[in-house]
Amino acid sequence: MRLIRFDVEGTARTGCVDDDLVRAYDPVTGPGEVVGPLSGIRLLAPCDPRTIVCVGSNYPCQLKEKGRPWPERPALFLKAPNAITGPGRPILHPPEVERLEYEGELAVVIGRTARNLTVENALSHVLGYTCANDVTAHDWRADGQWARAKSADTFLPLGPWITTGIENGDLEVTTRINDRTVQRATTGEMIFGVPAILAWVTRWFTLRPGDVVLTGSPAGVGPMKPGDEVTVAIEGVGELTNPVRSRDQAANSRD
Amino acid sequence: MRLIRFDVEGTARTGCVDDDLVRAYDPVTGPGEVVGPLSGIRLLAPCDPRTIVCVGSNYPCQLKEKGRPWPERPALFLKAPNAITGPGRPILHPPEVERLEYEGELAVVIGRTARNLTVENALSHVLGYTCANDVTAHDWRADGQWARAKSADTFLPLGPWITTGIENGDLEVTTRINDRTVQRATTGEMIFGVPAILAWVTRWFTLRPGDVVLTGSPAGVGPMKPGDEVTVAIEGVGELTNPVRSRDQAANSRD
Repeated sequence: MRLIRFDVEGTARTGCVDDDLVRAYDPVTGPGEVVGPLSGIRLLAPCDPRTIVCVGSNYPCQLKEKGRPWPERPALFLKAPNAITGPGRPILHPPEVERLEYEGELAVVIGRTARNLTVENALSHVLGYTCANDVTAHDWRADGQWARAKSADTFLPLGPWITTGIENGDLEVTTRINDRTVQRATTGEMIFGVPAILAWVTRWFTLRPGDVVLTGSPAGVGPMKPGDEVTVAIEGVGELTNPVRSRDQAANSRD
Repeated sequence: MRLIRFDVEGTARTGCVDDDLVRAYDPVTGPGEVVGPLSGIRLLAPCDPRTIVCVGSNYPCQLKEKGRPWPERPALFLKAPNAITGPGRPILHPPEVERLEYEGELAVVIGRTARNLTVENALSHVLGYTCANDVTAHDWRADGQWARAKSADTFLPLGPWITTGIENGDLEVTTRINDRTVQRATTGEMIFGVPAILAWVTRWFTLRPGDVVLTGSPAGVGPMKPGDEVTVAIEGVGELTNPVRSRDQAANSRD
């Protein structure tokens, strides 16, 4: 099933997508009445997390590219909820930033309160998967802590939907800038798979339904410029596309 | 006014405290019926933030103590919402941590959506102030990014209430371990005051009502052990007291 959130006159509604038809969706009663065609609605990020935990250095190809050491355990950092934006919405490029980077990755959406999970029971706490772009202001990593670098407004596009009922073990993840493929790997290459990540994260962080865990980005991270369009595509999950705009021009045009 | 959140059979309610009497409180209609005496309710953290931005290195006494350079701008890091706990609730000491530290500080609670604030208009976006303990696992700072070090469960006690209608400029902040005072400073000593912090933070982070900004901790940060009781007291705001317990013992006793 593909679960969405969409905007109706400023209010977020939940739905599900069946072919190109949107139905209302209630977590308890399931699919309801038909809302209309997918093309007629405005998608929002498909979940509304509070805690967002991210894993870095999780693909061998990326470690090799960057010359980084093999991690002994998942390397964690946070993103903040103000950074979230939805499918099709602009990634706002701050004019002060020299190098704003895409990082395509698989995002895990939590379905049940998760604390001290084990590798064995972790997946039963997952609602499903969506695509994430862990947008990063490379210059601002010099701040030391990556608060601005990782969590300025619009630095976390999520979507287009949460796909439930799939295996996460060997999905192809690709990122495209305009029509050029710049990242390609499969989730089977991850150093720490989803169960191991969740077991580690939930030793320290109690995750609630809707919270999100990002699983790291493959080799090929690179810059985006205003005017670019960036797509994160995950096999069996979906495609998340966002245009890049200059933040100050977007502010002037009231986007 | 002193705004609280409290627990009624597992549901969070909002209220206000008048002397020792609790009234229901609605943000639109204001104070309502009397609920009962303050001693008869269980306080929760007084707000429910999604984005939590923190400032480090903001007191000259702390820079001097640590031998750190004077910051050119507010040094930011994040805490995640899973870390929040309420007044009187235990700070859970992970047994793996050698040195778990208190950091008493003034927390700003946002009242209106805040983006690109100026020093001049920043305070009109503040709902009020509360006490925060920026609990830190000193050992885990070696992770590089401070996700675990700053945001493991219970690492952000907040409360006891949000005090509105006060000036933030020169309040005494003290921290006590058991009956020993270990931190003492006034907010007037801050390198970046609340307006300057909010102007900087909201250049990058859009803050929503209920979001929280921590303003940094004075000299005297030190360790806490299971069995200790730690109090952050801010003049004109209130006192936030939490016991420290071993996490694994607390888990066994189902606290």
